[in-house]
Amino acid sequence: MTCAVAAARCTAARALLGGYKAGTTLRCVTMAPSYCVTLRDVQEAQRRIQGLVHTTPVMTSSSLDALAARNLFFKCELLQKTGSFKIRGAVNAVKSLPADKCTAVVTHSSGNHGQALALAAQMMGIPAHVVVPTTAATCKKSAILGYGALIVDCEPTDKSRAEVAAQTVQKTGGVLIHPNQDPAVIAGQGTIGLEVLQQVPCLEALVIPVGGGGMLAGIAIAVKAIKPDIKIYAAEPLNADDCYRAKMSGVLTPNLQPPVTVADGVKTSIGPNTWPIIRDEVDEVFVVTEDEIKNATRLVWERMKLLIEPTAGLGLATILSRQFQEKTRDIQNIGVVLCGGNVDLGSIDWLKQP
Amino acid sequence: MTCAVAAARCTAARALLGGYKAGTTLRCVTMAPSYCVTLRDVQEAQRRIQGLVHTTPVMTSSSLDALAARNLFFKCELLQKTGSFKIRGAVNAVKSLPADKCTAVVTHSSGNHGQALALAAQMMGIPAHVVVPTTAATCKKSAILGYGALIVDCEPTDKSRAEVAAQTVQKTGGVLIHPNQDPAVIAGQGTIGLEVLQQVPCLEALVIPVGGGGMLAGIAIAVKAIKPDIKIYAAEPLNADDCYRAKMSGVLTPNLQPPVTVADGVKTSIGPNTWPIIRDEVDEVFVVTEDEIKNATRLVWERMKLLIEPTAGLGLATILSRQFQEKTRDIQNIGVVLCGGNVDLGSIDWLKQP
Repeated sequence: MTCAVAAARCTAARALLGGYKAGTTLRCVTMAPSYCVTLRDVQEAQRRIQGLVHTTPVMTSSSLDALAARNLFFKCELLQKTGSFKIRGAVNAVKSLPADKCTAVVTHSSGNHGQALALAAQMMGIPAHVVVPTTAATCKKSAILGYGALIVDCEPTDKSRAEVAAQTVQKTGGVLIHPNQDPAVIAGQGTIGLEVLQQVPCLEALVIPVGGGGMLAGIAIAVKAIKPDIKIYAAEPLNADDCYRAKMSGVLTPNLQPPVTVADGVKTSIGPNTWPIIRDEVDEVFVVTEDEIKNATRLVWERMKLLIEPTAGLGLATILSRQFQEKTRDIQNIGVVLCGGNVDLGSIDWLKQP
Repeated sequence: MTCAVAAARCTAARALLGGYKAGTTLRCVTMAPSYCVTLRDVQEAQRRIQGLVHTTPVMTSSSLDALAARNLFFKCELLQKTGSFKIRGAVNAVKSLPADKCTAVVTHSSGNHGQALALAAQMMGIPAHVVVPTTAATCKKSAILGYGALIVDCEPTDKSRAEVAAQTVQKTGGVLIHPNQDPAVIAGQGTIGLEVLQQVPCLEALVIPVGGGGMLAGIAIAVKAIKPDIKIYAAEPLNADDCYRAKMSGVLTPNLQPPVTVADGVKTSIGPNTWPIIRDEVDEVFVVTEDEIKNATRLVWERMKLLIEPTAGLGLATILSRQFQEKTRDIQNIGVVLCGGNVDLGSIDWLKQP
């Protein structure tokens, strides 16, 4: 997609939505490149990460097809290195650093991005410093240490995380890689879109979980530029519905309280870099309940034998929801991103709930 | 493998082992085909089931390779139709029936074979009658019904199962398909061996769970005939070690008590048709503890994101055991059959045990 086309889409969307926060529209109004990432960025990311990450398989399930009354194509990012798609963005971000900056990286995610950045840094032979709350689960710390990163303790508050991360950047000279607003991260996640278009040429729609929106924005930019007719749907927990509310109101509106959801990979809100792309390129956001997420996760476990994390159940939960079924009757071939499989097996009590 | 060669191998093995039950050696002594199945039977089975079952993928895991200090190639039969390899044998058995006998089938397995036979019968458009103890888990009954089979209740004893199955055969005119001693079933399971040889040409050994021995015998016949140098290792729970004891003593010695093991797919003992093949063509049987099985199962869940059933953890448990590591130092490329993924998610308490 060229910048001009992007800007036009952006303006149209603005007209439709009737106004949104000034700060997020600056690039659009000035007709500079509308978004922080273009198709070319995603294509370059694909070349950059090739051979360092897996081309994940697409799997199907006749019993889930029957339940959904569609043909579903599951993009298996749970089988990706580090157990989630995050390694795509992390490798692209680390490999995109200028030579003089590529000495160390820092992040304050103790989840999938933390593990991914740890491995990406290890691949490049530089240290990764991961700021982790002292209360984090031992299995998360072990995974980060297992990929050769250094753990920096902080208090379990957002303030402490940010402060300790800033101190770590200053102390180590490392570069902070944001888990979902860094343009190189967004471009890296977008490579999922390029892959799935090649793997499933008949695709008519994609359903993608949204937290910070890095994956959603990256895929949307790539897919809409290549095949504008493909619908891009976001899947979000009702309990963490900032993206849904932003799309409805046209205004970036982060979750005010830390959300309580079993889909722990999408507790974070979309941000200033992913919002304009989501606003313009995503067709609709669907929200699902906790029970719907748990049910869909269990269905993928039982029917596909794939150990997805609950966050990855968001896509199927959305497709099986009444709302989605009613609104998308004419769409037959749907891609679903199974974004990760890092389940804490010590805490799966929810699975046994009726 | 020709019958003559098979007979020679059999005779040599008999000399080595120093005698075994008369009933099991009749064919060997008369120099008739030694075994109930030959390579040709397996090749014909492959043609027969083609298009009706999946060619399952082979997956790898660098972190499990590191743990095992080998290259491991996981043959993913958990991704097979019905969630286990059993559909191979079931389809071959049903499709091998003479036209006048192909009216109905009967079995008394409420596990993976029951589901597999139900689907195989459905594919062929004939009824399947599955004898199920009244105490069987609801999820097992649902799966059998889901594949269109008819459930026939029996008491939860071996005697009642056998009696009700015999009555059902008489009443329906159906053919009883034994889950692991039926030659067509053994040949069907052997197609796993043909596939994996094509998928992993560098293979030096295969590790295969053993219960009734249908899969082990079928694969052994096929693989040893094509590449005699490939080692065939059986993996068995210490708590259900009839195959191990038979190999040590040279005598078919079924488990006297119903075994207590988390690997519920291999509680049954090897039988008269699988024993001669296992005796002659399997290089060694390894036994593992319940803790080793649970640990390996959990490792596959965590590292590969594949929801195997504990029975499918037997292979990795064996490879990680000290005994196996010490005895097979010079073998680098090992295939592991992940035989199924039908876990009862309502009863996974064992997973949380330390």
